[in-house]
Amino acid sequence: MRIDVKEAGRMLSGMDNVVILTHLNPDGDTLGSAFALYNALKSLGKNAVVKNSEGFPSQYEFLYKGYEEKQFPEENIVAVDIADAQLFGANLEAYKDRVILCIDHHKTNSDYAKYVCVDHEKAAACEIIYEVILAMGAKIDKQTANCLYTGIATDTGCFKFSNTSANTHRVAAALFEAGAEYDFINQQMFIVKKKSRIEAERLIMDTMEFFFEGRVAVIAIRKDVFLKTGAEEAELDGIAGLPRSIEGVQIGVTVKEKEGGKYKISLRTSNEVDASVLCSEFGGGGHARAAGCTIMGAEAEVKAKILEKAKEYLK
Amino acid sequence: MRIDVKEAGRMLSGMDNVVILTHLNPDGDTLGSAFALYNALKSLGKNAVVKNSEGFPSQYEFLYKGYEEKQFPEENIVAVDIADAQLFGANLEAYKDRVILCIDHHKTNSDYAKYVCVDHEKAAACEIIYEVILAMGAKIDKQTANCLYTGIATDTGCFKFSNTSANTHRVAAALFEAGAEYDFINQQMFIVKKKSRIEAERLIMDTMEFFFEGRVAVIAIRKDVFLKTGAEEAELDGIAGLPRSIEGVQIGVTVKEKEGGKYKISLRTSNEVDASVLCSEFGGGGHARAAGCTIMGAEAEVKAKILEKAKEYLK
Repeated sequence: MRIDVKEAGRMLSGMDNVVILTHLNPDGDTLGSAFALYNALKSLGKNAVVKNSEGFPSQYEFLYKGYEEKQFPEENIVAVDIADAQLFGANLEAYKDRVILCIDHHKTNSDYAKYVCVDHEKAAACEIIYEVILAMGAKIDKQTANCLYTGIATDTGCFKFSNTSANTHRVAAALFEAGAEYDFINQQMFIVKKKSRIEAERLIMDTMEFFFEGRVAVIAIRKDVFLKTGAEEAELDGIAGLPRSIEGVQIGVTVKEKEGGKYKISLRTSNEVDASVLCSEFGGGGHARAAGCTIMGAEAEVKAKILEKAKEYLK
Repeated sequence: MRIDVKEAGRMLSGMDNVVILTHLNPDGDTLGSAFALYNALKSLGKNAVVKNSEGFPSQYEFLYKGYEEKQFPEENIVAVDIADAQLFGANLEAYKDRVILCIDHHKTNSDYAKYVCVDHEKAAACEIIYEVILAMGAKIDKQTANCLYTGIATDTGCFKFSNTSANTHRVAAALFEAGAEYDFINQQMFIVKKKSRIEAERLIMDTMEFFFEGRVAVIAIRKDVFLKTGAEEAELDGIAGLPRSIEGVQIGVTVKEKEGGKYKISLRTSNEVDASVLCSEFGGGGHARAAGCTIMGAEAEVKAKILEKAKEYLK
């Protein structure tokens, strides 16, 4: 059953012993949503815990510093920023049919929870959680503001993606006033890069090739990049956006070498091409402007397969 | 004499035949400020013209499309986003002692105008111009919103620099609601890059050197970069942020070759170092985190001079 933020807030303020679930490959929005809600519940004197199938990535440590998982009878399961129960991951699978409330901003939300508070016009789940927390009657303290700002900033590419709205900016203003350490967060998320990332980026840029009068650009991330630079895979977050960012490119392709002769393909497209439809030709999927699939073979073969299909989709 | 936005608005609404001056090497903020003010003055039935010493760069064409310079007796000279009359450039030098009103956000404003409306807590001059236009009793139409949004977005690196405030986000929200084409502007300014820019960036990255245990990083923009890549100078906007973006760097230095053995130095600093104070040692200035100066000499000499001073400022 679909409910609005006021009802979600009321529901949460009546709950105790809350387990908050976050999605697989957790990002700033799912973690920001979860820890903001956790803080709000704690401030109202309730038990709460945040769970992820694989743990919390260290780059988001500032969201969960001082956090300790306490034991209590698990009464209420709440999912944040999770469009589908498939995204729970193996270790959270047991919660699949027990979710009482899901708060999310994905158009594709599969209504797996008993109560669903979804608004796909919001750029980030954190934009919704902000209103839910106010509806709970809880305060937005500094750390909660940090969590919410992180989700909003990361899901909008720091307010540059088209999902950004007047409301996004308005909530950001309120979070600044609530004490969000935006300078630190922006530095961490958008400004400071490791030297190894810069080196890796340079090597990857050297692999860039253009096809079909510059309408398709392809980069390769070969395993040796990590050996040569010391970069970790998680450091290269967002690099798949590079080929598409070049003027005139409609399809940006990133071909990433994995174990066993497998290549993970990431597609980023301009509004002329639907990336998820193109990727579905190879058994993959995703969003209209960002999608992925996996192809077996040598690098040259994999590229040839993608290019053959890409050609059909160009406008 | 220092005045506030209300007084500046009142003054402008009483003016006619206004010449609006923008600074040398015009950026999104000086041009956005100027054309927003131009639109507002025109909407009130006044004559206005925007001037730059060297013309308007094509990447900002969307700010001045349809603009035509009309002739009229030049009665009132207004400068926007210009901290000092030295930044007028040779072709606007004649206006130096005739500026009636300056609207600016630089702490270092030298009070060269008769009336000065300065607020250095604002991230962009456009943030001030927004209030001035409202105080003039003019409407913020779509094109004016585009101009103001461009200035605010470019001066804050799309809301990621530390100069961003709650007010910056609040004004952005208002501009979205006034119809600003933020998706188009963000694509133009922050997402899509020309191939020549990517090539130039790669050559420039190859010049990067580190000093003092990685706390200072230096890049050089040599003239041949433009010959080799076909990039224009204006395309490299923002590249001065690169050295500072590397983990551990407190002072990022960009050394740009100009005519006649001159080098333009751009400094970007972390919050440990005041860039404007450091640049003032060489007769330059700017903001605490971003400042500039000019030094004569060969590249190696220029770097040595900067590094010698930089060393004193490191924490």
